[in-house]
Amino acid sequence: MTFCKTTALLFLAFASIRAQDKRPADLLLLHGTVVAMDQQRRVLEDGALAVKDGLIEAIGPSDKIASAYRSNKEIDARGAIIMPGLINAHTHMAMSLFRGLAEDRSLQDWLQKFIFPAEAKNVTADFVTWGTKLSIVEMIHGGTTTVADMYYFEDEVAQALKDAGMRGVLGETIIGFPAPDNKTSEAAFAYTEKFLTHWKGDSLITAAVAPHSIYTCSEKLLKDSAALARAYHVPILMHLAEAPYEMEVSRREHGSSPVQYLARIGVLGPDLLGAHCVWMDQADIQSLAHYGVGCSYNPSSNMKSAAGLMPATEMLAVGVGVGIGTDGAASNNNQDMFEEMDLAAKLQKFAHADPTSLPAEETVAMATIIGARALHIEKQTGSLEIGKKADMIVVDTTAPHATPMYNVYAQLVYALKAADVRTTIINGRVVMEDGKLLTLDEAAILAKANQYKKQVAGSFTH
Amino acid sequence: MTFCKTTALLFLAFASIRAQDKRPADLLLLHGTVVAMDQQRRVLEDGALAVKDGLIEAIGPSDKIASAYRSNKEIDARGAIIMPGLINAHTHMAMSLFRGLAEDRSLQDWLQKFIFPAEAKNVTADFVTWGTKLSIVEMIHGGTTTVADMYYFEDEVAQALKDAGMRGVLGETIIGFPAPDNKTSEAAFAYTEKFLTHWKGDSLITAAVAPHSIYTCSEKLLKDSAALARAYHVPILMHLAEAPYEMEVSRREHGSSPVQYLARIGVLGPDLLGAHCVWMDQADIQSLAHYGVGCSYNPSSNMKSAAGLMPATEMLAVGVGVGIGTDGAASNNNQDMFEEMDLAAKLQKFAHADPTSLPAEETVAMATIIGARALHIEKQTGSLEIGKKADMIVVDTTAPHATPMYNVYAQLVYALKAADVRTTIINGRVVMEDGKLLTLDEAAILAKANQYKKQVAGSFTH
Repeated sequence: MTFCKTTALLFLAFASIRAQDKRPADLLLLHGTVVAMDQQRRVLEDGALAVKDGLIEAIGPSDKIASAYRSNKEIDARGAIIMPGLINAHTHMAMSLFRGLAEDRSLQDWLQKFIFPAEAKNVTADFVTWGTKLSIVEMIHGGTTTVADMYYFEDEVAQALKDAGMRGVLGETIIGFPAPDNKTSEAAFAYTEKFLTHWKGDSLITAAVAPHSIYTCSEKLLKDSAALARAYHVPILMHLAEAPYEMEVSRREHGSSPVQYLARIGVLGPDLLGAHCVWMDQADIQSLAHYGVGCSYNPSSNMKSAAGLMPATEMLAVGVGVGIGTDGAASNNNQDMFEEMDLAAKLQKFAHADPTSLPAEETVAMATIIGARALHIEKQTGSLEIGKKADMIVVDTTAPHATPMYNVYAQLVYALKAADVRTTIINGRVVMEDGKLLTLDEAAILAKANQYKKQVAGSFTH
Repeated sequence: MTFCKTTALLFLAFASIRAQDKRPADLLLLHGTVVAMDQQRRVLEDGALAVKDGLIEAIGPSDKIASAYRSNKEIDARGAIIMPGLINAHTHMAMSLFRGLAEDRSLQDWLQKFIFPAEAKNVTADFVTWGTKLSIVEMIHGGTTTVADMYYFEDEVAQALKDAGMRGVLGETIIGFPAPDNKTSEAAFAYTEKFLTHWKGDSLITAAVAPHSIYTCSEKLLKDSAALARAYHVPILMHLAEAPYEMEVSRREHGSSPVQYLARIGVLGPDLLGAHCVWMDQADIQSLAHYGVGCSYNPSSNMKSAAGLMPATEMLAVGVGVGIGTDGAASNNNQDMFEEMDLAAKLQKFAHADPTSLPAEETVAMATIIGARALHIEKQTGSLEIGKKADMIVVDTTAPHATPMYNVYAQLVYALKAADVRTTIINGRVVMEDGKLLTLDEAAILAKANQYKKQVAGSFTH
């Protein structure tokens, strides 16, 4: 008995010394298949990460990380992939409250008879807060850790993201007609400038400038937007070459493609994120590469609205940073980056009549590190590397629909689902663990969404 | 006290009388949004069904059904849709064990370097049993209640389906070269005839005849297959006009399209289910309509393998029964009919440059009642109507990614996921309840799948 007690004490002392030797970490993730999405595209079986002060402190085999670091919080990622959080490169989060409002209609019908009237009647600061929260719930469940968003009342969007602990590049829409919040473009500029000042230096929110498009903004609005963004050193978000209508406007009013028009008036640059970029010729693609423009490929939205095909394969081939976006839930109807990866790859193969187009590994890169480059935040996030923000997800690989697994990238793109995401970590903070949201009241958000649905549906019955 | 006891007794007596008045049912589903997919396309809020002896006994408002029927088993479908089970119109279930084995490759590479060698080295009766079970698990989880399957060792496929309580139209592949089970086509015919006899009259299994395709079967094999099917009054399953290679073969060897060739040799008929049907001209489409051929549209597989576009919209317009299929997991990589519905609609819109193409309601019909017609079993299943087999699913509509809901069909096609299926009922039997499988040992199946993965991967390392 005495011997046992002594042994136990000795062991405790030894353990305590050992623990003191270890460096402290805020969080350890252990025993997962680490898919780093770094330049070497490292995949570590039984891999681990240590997180400290919101950053990735170490990455390596589980036994080495476990013997070098101690933490009060450990996540066991057995049977799962640990990878960078997904980056949704284009959406309008608050539009989740219009999910499925108008379907299978022409773009003009959809916009003029449904979306614009619904927005005019319903979109307020409160609507935007709750609609954004609804999208955040869906996105965190599905492993998205960073989002690029442009809508109205963007200060509410930023606050909702900040409260949820999610990363975003956000822009208040600047548009050449009265919007639900700002009735003039002067007001939108004043709003944006205040917005940029307010969120400057935030650890999660990158405030941006967001002129809507070339067909809704005058040349002056576009130039002033770019000048404002450059004065504050922030990104510019805009819709770019989305649909045939925009091409007609551009050729008629500017005598060139939207890309060449924007090049001529000085808007193209290494701070621009263009959404859609469907209607591109070779000269346009070269210009995007030359200026370092980032782009968002939105396959669901482009297929559903029949906008056309982004030449993503050709753009990637010349070095354009092409991320993947869901677009708003009124056009998709989800905020699901797993579904978007699957469609992204399949649509390129179909359209090029070539099954080797856009392979799985490249597609995962688009949803992570290349997406970060498209948003111009690749130094912060998008891959699992020491010193980068700890934005990462744990994806369960044991479901029947993802068994067996021969190749981790193929599984991520073609077999795994948003529902397989177990745990989501943003900026080092666990915002969802084992499917449970830790920063949002899901039930309250769903209740509010159903309440707003009645209001929106009611606004169409008169 | 005495008063209370008396009251209680009186109440019990009354309740007992009331219960005796009610007709007995094996199962009641109550308080769901019933999407019947009948001719009137009825949608009942707070709807219910009574099930008896495997059939739908009654359908109507919950209060009426509850007051007319009693049952020991009630399912509360509040916050959910009750709809016909989904029909997967084309797959090779056992190929789930090759999920993700070879990706992003040309069809010839994929087939010749990976799939054919993997099949030759690994496919046995045991392999087919476990691979089929793995797909059944995925499909029942995702709300599929009927499947059309063609592969090898199809008797094992039938037994696995039967054990799981799932409905199927199944055919042993007849092919003009040695297969993993039957080394000659004579052996395949003998196998098929025994197979047809064995399963004749089964409540779940419809045995069929399955010549592989026009490019792997001689004219004699095709004619003999059709004759055998017609002698037994069973369906014929085959691949039809899937890829450019097949078109070349057909034009070179038969001087016409695959459809016209099959018409000429007498194979087309109201018992044929053609898978893929991508390369169709107007005359082909008219022939399919004329002969009452059913077809399976497999958008994931066709996109991923870059096979081309099925003219589904044009085929439906002239009355061809076009169902939706996943194809095998080596080509998809899921057996997920929700994802397939979403892709089905989006691909038609994209390819026709028309967002009104293939609307949501029609897409749901393709996955249910039109799918049943394609499989030539529309008198048994595919819609919720009195007297039909009780094949139905309960789909939860309360998840964030499907909130709010404006239109039930749009939600099913564009927002809801396989993971939202709560409960699956086939032939009146509850095979999954609240996400828990009741007829299969999921853990044992996953363990076997992982074991086979090692064997298959090992067979490529020499």
